[in-house]
Amino acid sequence: MATVADVDHHDGVASTALLTDQYELTMLAAALADGSAHRACTFEVFARRLPHGRRYGVVAGTGRLLEALANFRFGEKELAIVAGFLDDRTLDWLRAYRFTGEIDGYAEGELYFPGSPILSVRGSFAECVVLETLILSILNHDSAIASAAARMVSAAAGRRMIEMGSRRAHELAAPSASRAAYLAGFDATSNLEAVRTYGVPGAGTSAHAFTLLHSGADGAHEAAAFRSQVQTLGVGTTLLVDTFDITRGVANAIEVAGTELGGVRIDSGDLGVLARQVRVQLDELGATKTRIVVSGDLDEYSIAALHGDPVDVYGVGTALVTGSGAPTAGMVFKLVEVDGLPVAKRSSHKESRGGAKKAVRLARDTGTVVEEIVYLATGPEPASGEFQSRPLSVPLVRDGKALDGLPTLAESRALVSRGLVSLPWEGLKLSDGDPAIPTTFLS
Amino acid sequence: MATVADVDHHDGVASTALLTDQYELTMLAAALADGSAHRACTFEVFARRLPHGRRYGVVAGTGRLLEALANFRFGEKELAIVAGFLDDRTLDWLRAYRFTGEIDGYAEGELYFPGSPILSVRGSFAECVVLETLILSILNHDSAIASAAARMVSAAAGRRMIEMGSRRAHELAAPSASRAAYLAGFDATSNLEAVRTYGVPGAGTSAHAFTLLHSGADGAHEAAAFRSQVQTLGVGTTLLVDTFDITRGVANAIEVAGTELGGVRIDSGDLGVLARQVRVQLDELGATKTRIVVSGDLDEYSIAALHGDPVDVYGVGTALVTGSGAPTAGMVFKLVEVDGLPVAKRSSHKESRGGAKKAVRLARDTGTVVEEIVYLATGPEPASGEFQSRPLSVPLVRDGKALDGLPTLAESRALVSRGLVSLPWEGLKLSDGDPAIPTTFLS
Repeated sequence: MATVADVDHHDGVASTALLTDQYELTMLAAALADGSAHRACTFEVFARRLPHGRRYGVVAGTGRLLEALANFRFGEKELAIVAGFLDDRTLDWLRAYRFTGEIDGYAEGELYFPGSPILSVRGSFAECVVLETLILSILNHDSAIASAAARMVSAAAGRRMIEMGSRRAHELAAPSASRAAYLAGFDATSNLEAVRTYGVPGAGTSAHAFTLLHSGADGAHEAAAFRSQVQTLGVGTTLLVDTFDITRGVANAIEVAGTELGGVRIDSGDLGVLARQVRVQLDELGATKTRIVVSGDLDEYSIAALHGDPVDVYGVGTALVTGSGAPTAGMVFKLVEVDGLPVAKRSSHKESRGGAKKAVRLARDTGTVVEEIVYLATGPEPASGEFQSRPLSVPLVRDGKALDGLPTLAESRALVSRGLVSLPWEGLKLSDGDPAIPTTFLS
Repeated sequence: MATVADVDHHDGVASTALLTDQYELTMLAAALADGSAHRACTFEVFARRLPHGRRYGVVAGTGRLLEALANFRFGEKELAIVAGFLDDRTLDWLRAYRFTGEIDGYAEGELYFPGSPILSVRGSFAECVVLETLILSILNHDSAIASAAARMVSAAAGRRMIEMGSRRAHELAAPSASRAAYLAGFDATSNLEAVRTYGVPGAGTSAHAFTLLHSGADGAHEAAAFRSQVQTLGVGTTLLVDTFDITRGVANAIEVAGTELGGVRIDSGDLGVLARQVRVQLDELGATKTRIVVSGDLDEYSIAALHGDPVDVYGVGTALVTGSGAPTAGMVFKLVEVDGLPVAKRSSHKESRGGAKKAVRLARDTGTVVEEIVYLATGPEPASGEFQSRPLSVPLVRDGKALDGLPTLAESRALVSRGLVSLPWEGLKLSDGDPAIPTTFLS
């Protein structure tokens, strides 16, 4: 059995063309047969709502999407899979497929709210419809992680954050989760593929297994494990002190490493109580600069609860890579315009607004945002009155190619940071609430 | 920026070596330096608990793991990334790395309970410790999806199930989710990469966009869209009837396709009410064999709630690929034995049981299981009394190589099905509860 990575390669890069739902290709076949495939269409990506109680979302994945789009090519290996249910006309069309359309949308790192037109994808029906799954998979995953991560970063109030959730995520989703966490303000990741692929700074401490390895018939030799780690990694390393007794562990750590020890990690127990106790012990031993790293099922709420405790670094895993209760952003990809005319479904509960749209965000002179306005792309930019108006819909793709000068990961990271600062203070509360600002639809 | 798929290739297959947490390699470096790296170790994979209220879990991902293990090789590209924080001895060791140890464990598709020794990984500390993240990422993801899927399959009580959640999952996790759903009893997937990579049967219907595409200045032409779909895909196709008015949609569908139409899909509204209404309408029109497909945020509870309604096929997306509230299985990878002696950490709340373990499951003559017994691998197989005893720990890897004759995906699928049948009836309840059978630890 082949692995997903073992797919047809164009210039050494894996094709993303089969990361697609079958119905997109059968709709394509029917549309090619009846001629409607070539009608000029606009599809819009938006979220009908934020996850329960959330006050904002963070757009993430755009950079990854633009790369995946360039590799959306049907080679002979991909065509062989779909030949069973498609006619020759459709296969020939797919063989020649290149996206030649245009994409506008929110820059990666921009905040979003319900109904924000996050992407606007324009081209023939045929060339757009086949991208639905790829676009949504990437944006829904990465935005879910980044949105949860931003709340954690906000709760950590400037303390260092390490993403260490790879083991609780699909192995190939984990590097993307690391990237999304970094985008949202995390400082580092444990995931080496994220270090390689996205240049996220790497970090790590040690596991209980390393301490337990240094056991004999006479029991555990914690100090021997610490000595080994310090000898190889230097006194700047972080020692895991909770394998047996934490007080004894801290004493062993400083005895072995001296007062210049970089850090100690606590991974179990009541982290606030233990952090206070360990801080006192470290200070009494003279290790006043040794940092305290805490980990163990942390989420934004437990991070916030540790605000008054002497914690220097948070290591966050499961809650981060699972979106802290909201593992997908729930964005959809809807046809909103055909040959220049708005279209929308009318069935119960899932109405959408027709017409290609753009958005602006209004802010006070202080920079605090007050409202988002979504308007028809054919209309004029809405009046901003006393407020500053910032356009959110920017060109991303022209003639099927990603434009030069799109934000780097570092620039998107700065954009998230500016976005969080711009929210009214209520918008940063962790408790359940409404979107931080209202959205007005001029359509 | 490169994509994750664009990694070093050994014989055309991507290396999985960097799907790893940095601390595994720094622990390796310290253990190589102090000589402990070569001690004989056993690491165990287990779940401390099931997700809240769940009564069983389904082991999934083993097949994918054994493939990924074979590709866990450090080529020069991987070494270049880790060279920044590792010494030459460690780099040389990684360059030569091949797993040469043994793995026993639960067959893929076996049910599991809290503390079940799902995998037992034996080898030198060095060769085992580097596999932690890869092993956990794969098993935690796939088991979470399969465990949720099995509850849905159980709730569907024999009706056809299509997995269509790719758009709500990371693009490269989606094919694995499809595979896990199929393993647990789903019949088909929308995901074409899962069709290619794992041979899961493909399926699909149509989207609202296809109907909306067939609009003009005079409004929508639903019948034209249906006619096109039937002409290209045949009358066996499934038409999406809820873009505008469902009653009108069903009438259009039968008028265009005739009474031999394969199916109609309802994707919004109160699915039970609509299914009953549509069934009556279809029957009155003579389309008595036309199937009703329902979709739209289904989970195991809403599937069960539709039990009395005339639904033929369930299309399940978001809840499936996000594990229906439990997106990760929470399995851990713990060192339990060093040079033949049991080891275990003692810090608060996270104790683990030392010693390499095996398990058997006891059943009545009727096949209904009553208890799982976990015992030290060095001890005798426990007495089964009046019950049938079935060993759960089977050899998977010897001399670093996956054994021949391990279950195929179809065989694992049959194993899940037999496992569900073997549970006491309480174990299949969807409501929150305790594990379906107790586990006894003889250690």
